Amino acid sequence: MKIFQQHISLKARERGFHLVTDEILAAMPELKQIKIGMCQVFIQHTSASLTINENADYTVRKDFESHFNKMVPEKAPYYLHDYEGDDDMPAHIKASLLGASVNIPVANGRLALGTWQGIYLCEHRNHGGRRRCVITAWGE
Amino acid sequence: MKIFQQHISLKARERGFHLVTDEILAAMPELKQIKIGMCQVFIQHTSASLTINENADYTVRKDFESHFNKMVPEKAPYYLHDYEGDDDMPAHIKASLLGASVNIPVANGRLALGTWQGIYLCEHRNHGGRRRCVITAWGE
Amino acid sequence: MKIFQQHISLKARERGFHLVTDEILAAMPELKQIKIGMCQVFIQHTSASLTINENADYTVRKDFESHFNKMVPEKAPYYLHDYEGDDDMPAHIKASLLGASVNIPVANGRLALGTWQGIYLCEHRNHGGRRRCVITAWGE
Repeated sequence: MKIFQQHISLKARERGFHLVTDEILAAMPELKQIKIGMCQVFIQHTSASLTINENADYTVRKDFESHFNKMVPEKAPYYLHDYEGDDDMPAHIKASLLGASVNIPVANGRLALGTWQGIYLCEHRNHGGRRRCVITAWGE
Repeated sequence: MKIFQQHISLKARERGFHLVTDEILAAMPELKQIKIGMCQVFIQHTSASLTINENADYTVRKDFESHFNKMVPEKAPYYLHDYEGDDDMPAHIKASLLGASVNIPVANGRLALGTWQGIYLCEHRNHGGRRRCVITAWGE
Repeated sequence: MKIFQQHISLKARERGFHLVTDEILAAMPELKQIKIGMCQVFIQHTSASLTINENADYTVRKDFESHFNKMVPEKAPYYLHDYEGDDDMPAHIKASLLGASVNIPVANGRLALGTWQGIYLCEHRNHGGRRRCVITAWGE
């Protein structure tokens, strides 16, 4: 059983949902050495998140942004944590709804994603800056 | 440390939440060889998902379907991605809210689930068809 | 590759979101033996959950409780599963939205959390009692 770990920084992106599968793969070339295993990507922030969803039509990612903004609105009258900007508290809630990590099986040196699956970086802040991630892969 | 992986296909089910714990267990008999470890089930689709919840009363699963349909409605006026049917874009959002995988500890050759926990296949499409999953288990 | 597992019980807490990072760490001293690896905390219940979010300002945790109560209300007219109390069915739904586990990379004998990240126990019942968790850590 082997295990590999890379600490990376994803470039700053605008608020919204962004496909980052290729960047993740480029940062973990050791995946090719794993015949059966797992790969985890973990984001070290609480106002951005990671999820897996459709990798083709960009309107899916637009609709994610629209729907999350409605489901977790800014300026809800019950927010107490409001001194870091209107986008801050919704960003925390969205981050927990989507999660801080994606855990993907590895088969024959590749992520065993379905045909239409890609990894999204979900940027919930207006100006989130670079986002640190830890990629860990293990298997044999 | 051992690792096992199985690629399976869950039979087509109607839209809703379905208990699949027994099917998962049947597909991974090697679990018995693991004294301490982990088991992951990953679904290779973006309009169905997996979660862990109550394994007893079927009305819990009915209420999941009702609530998710309200929280993520069809025909929201802001959806741009609407050419694959009214159930498609909500299916993508529900899938990310619930997640593409469940990660369950293994203890003494069994999933270390609580008494009331079971694995749900969450079928978000009206006609989703068979659903491919990858089961990976590791430990010693 | 080493693997460790601990079964613990978190003390009963009131309904809401609670930081438990220190309790988790105290229960898994073997983490120090792992240079590169992973740690999973899994909750064996369907009406409480685990997530990762801001570890500083307690108003973030208050706002989580307020928002989840709005997003998943009690006494929704479509709930069929209502005989275990008004807080029961919402608790199940919240538990699946947030998830039964957190999966955190380990680097140099420590959880590789970001500066502001902590582990939340999300207690969704009014009187949930003690909550059993399984902590599993592996790596080399």
